[in-house]
Amino acid sequence: MLAGSIAVPRGPKGQTHTMPSAMNRRVLLRRRPVGTPRPDDFEVSESPIPSPHPGEILCRTLYLSIDPYMRGRMNEGRSYARSVELGQVMVGGTVSQVVESRHPGFASGDFVVGYDGWQAYAVSTGAGVRKLDPVQAPISTALGVLGMPGMTAYVGLLDIGQPAPGETVLVSAAAGAVGSVVGQIARIKGCHVVGIAGSKAKCDYAVSELGFDHCVDYRAQELLPALQAACPGGVDIYFDNVGGAALAAVLTLINRNARIPLCGLIAQYNAIELPSGPNLLPVLVSRALIKGFIVSDHGDRLAAFLGDCTRWLREGRLKYREDVVDGLEAAPAALIGVLEGRNFGKMLVSVLPDPTRPS
Amino acid sequence: MLAGSIAVPRGPKGQTHTMPSAMNRRVLLRRRPVGTPRPDDFEVSESPIPSPHPGEILCRTLYLSIDPYMRGRMNEGRSYARSVELGQVMVGGTVSQVVESRHPGFASGDFVVGYDGWQAYAVSTGAGVRKLDPVQAPISTALGVLGMPGMTAYVGLLDIGQPAPGETVLVSAAAGAVGSVVGQIARIKGCHVVGIAGSKAKCDYAVSELGFDHCVDYRAQELLPALQAACPGGVDIYFDNVGGAALAAVLTLINRNARIPLCGLIAQYNAIELPSGPNLLPVLVSRALIKGFIVSDHGDRLAAFLGDCTRWLREGRLKYREDVVDGLEAAPAALIGVLEGRNFGKMLVSVLPDPTRPS
Repeated sequence: MLAGSIAVPRGPKGQTHTMPSAMNRRVLLRRRPVGTPRPDDFEVSESPIPSPHPGEILCRTLYLSIDPYMRGRMNEGRSYARSVELGQVMVGGTVSQVVESRHPGFASGDFVVGYDGWQAYAVSTGAGVRKLDPVQAPISTALGVLGMPGMTAYVGLLDIGQPAPGETVLVSAAAGAVGSVVGQIARIKGCHVVGIAGSKAKCDYAVSELGFDHCVDYRAQELLPALQAACPGGVDIYFDNVGGAALAAVLTLINRNARIPLCGLIAQYNAIELPSGPNLLPVLVSRALIKGFIVSDHGDRLAAFLGDCTRWLREGRLKYREDVVDGLEAAPAALIGVLEGRNFGKMLVSVLPDPTRPS
Repeated sequence: MLAGSIAVPRGPKGQTHTMPSAMNRRVLLRRRPVGTPRPDDFEVSESPIPSPHPGEILCRTLYLSIDPYMRGRMNEGRSYARSVELGQVMVGGTVSQVVESRHPGFASGDFVVGYDGWQAYAVSTGAGVRKLDPVQAPISTALGVLGMPGMTAYVGLLDIGQPAPGETVLVSAAAGAVGSVVGQIARIKGCHVVGIAGSKAKCDYAVSELGFDHCVDYRAQELLPALQAACPGGVDIYFDNVGGAALAAVLTLINRNARIPLCGLIAQYNAIELPSGPNLLPVLVSRALIKGFIVSDHGDRLAAFLGDCTRWLREGRLKYREDVVDGLEAAPAALIGVLEGRNFGKMLVSVLPDPTRPS
């Protein structure tokens, strides 16, 4: 059994689904947002459930992952990957159940993690789709601690950050899906671990539940003196999920040969104008490294990540928290909330009921 | 013989020195500058010429190197290295001749490169002092193309930048002591080479003499469109000597997996307030690497650097230019000029006459 700490606030459930409804529901990008996205930048659309061709599978979406990177896909122009076209379904990671398989590698009833986007049903070729074993771990974890956010933490901290025991690791968005894993792996590696988060509840969670040494509430404390107090030996690794004022402050505290895995810049994803950035002189003086990275480049680390993190999860050394909202229609508000730091734990949308989860 | 292009504007020389004068002249740090240094932040002092103890050498300074990093040493607080104390002699690289040796490794008359600072005579233990052969190359090159600036270019471009043939290498302060070597080594490595410099004369020099493909005059052209035109395939390596607006513009042009050896931030060395910095989103999106580095960490590369660059110099593939002013008293104005980009070529102060140079 898992020793994970799971907090799942869920709304009241509707009727039991035993049969797929005849129609598919999808959330489309209706308009490119300027600044903060608004609910009417999206639209919910109904269309017939597609049928799989030979070599394809039809899946029903149980969980949709909501992640900050999605904001970039709503813009025109280059970001991590191609933009979502207007009128097209929003992209996103999904945990699904195979409804119908015309693919030799999958059977009806299989649980899978894939990239079906903001829709209740989807046909795919199975490319990039991975089967899940509900006995190993709750299937929703394939979108969080055992999924892209967890692997982002694993690769960014271990491969780019290269933590050594006794070093100070600082991580922003510390209670989030990525930050919470960064801090716990850093602790497993024997580091002094400090977080930055946006509420007392999140900071308490990071320290009491996740084992961080300190966590600074940037909404309640003046950041720089609080960080100086929490990192008396300076900062060796800053795993940055937010950019902005936190990065500017942390750069004044970095040690010689510091490493800064640059994972996200949430603070500026909704920005209309270019923000003013940090003073890079300490990067020069401290011979520091800033390295942008995207987890999808590091597929060769999947087996190591799943092996280590599944074991740590089973041993109770790696904990996680999910923030689940019900219904595909809740996805736009969930994304807007994630970009403003209002979620607490890995943000998931429960699209269709998860048959593996006790109700 | 050397094929180097040497332009040496020199003032009229005084009388021939055959004997050391009885007194030593030294330039001391009198006051910590606020913003741009002023001549009266320094003072010239006379004191007796020191005598070497057993194990020491007495040297007379032929050339003093003037480099942007010296501005940082005038501040209180950490920079690359310890500050110069008030009332102490300013630090700096020197090419000298041994006057008296009580050290088994040096003989009177030897030419050496060391770190004697802004003074005409200095005693040292010989630690970090390297003998020079005037037949191999003009001894002044040990402060430029075959010295710290050249090695900075070599290490930063090759070890951090890791250029591949066909890649686009962009370098700021392209006509300077470091930038000119970066561009030429990049060309030797088969790259498309673009410079940024601050005058038409410097840009013409970079293209016509040094073989850059393009050079953008940031004082005459709007930077971003000029860089876009000069780098139609984007920027793979940006060797940054200046920071500021140039870095902000270049970040919008970096390619996937770009490398940015962060060598200097001259644009902000005289700044009183923290400058606003660049938007780092392209660093994340492009999986780019920014790495601050200090050449003194890379002593293990000295032999490779001297071997390659001495050979390239002899083969005429590596050219250099010196900007020499006469007399120790000219050093403060020379440093102020370097920080404002007014020098053209490696800035040197001719302190005492160089007996190897035809007059």
